[in-house]
Amino acid sequence: MTNAQSLPVARAVGASASQSADVQRSAEVLKVSTRSRPSAVAGAIAGVIRESGMAEVQSIGAGATNQAIKAVAIARSYLHEEGIDIVCVPAFIDVAIDEEERTAIRLLIERR
Amino acid sequence: MTNAQSLPVARAVGASASQSADVQRSAEVLKVSTRSRPSAVAGAIAGVIRESGMAEVQSIGAGATNQAIKAVAIARSYLHEEGIDIVCVPAFIDVAIDEEERTAIRLLIERR
Repeated sequence: MTNAQSLPVARAVGASASQSADVQRSAEVLKVSTRSRPSAVAGAIAGVIRESGMAEVQSIGAGATNQAIKAVAIARSYLHEEGIDIVCVPAFIDVAIDEEERTAIRLLIERR
Repeated sequence: MTNAQSLPVARAVGASASQSADVQRSAEVLKVSTRSRPSAVAGAIAGVIRESGMAEVQSIGAGATNQAIKAVAIARSYLHEEGIDIVCVPAFIDVAIDEEERTAIRLLIERR
């Protein structure tokens, strides 16, 4: 049980306290689920990009990956208004969830 | 019925004739469905990138978008071996399918 994905320490980013289930952030990784609201995740991505110029989003499964990519599209429009252009680099990664190996999609989001 | 998405003129790219259902290509747009094989779509993306340095992938729905993003991740590894680095830019677009408006995800894929 060394897996951050299952730790209850997640905090909401780019969202009010009532939206804390929308996106989990640990060590600058935004973890997106099927139930994540794309606009809340987009706010989180935009915040991290403004802060550090780079963000990482992880998702497991089609529903979560779909929310993640929609969030990137929305974040692009948020940041575009500020003259920031972002691109994303998808890759497969293996993550351990409850001692089980799962394949996740990692989207690295960077300023162009 | 002016919609290319419903025309039966699709041809397979980066795939043998038996894989022609895997990816539809019209006017350099690769249309991905839930049933598309990510590796076949990846081959198509890699081919278009080698040819023109830029590819466009469209998907409607979570299942199709998931296949599309997996295809980009696989295409990255194909092209990485050739020293080509690609990034992707997601956006929402409205497409007409059988005279009905649908929101699709467009992934613009470009050489970095």
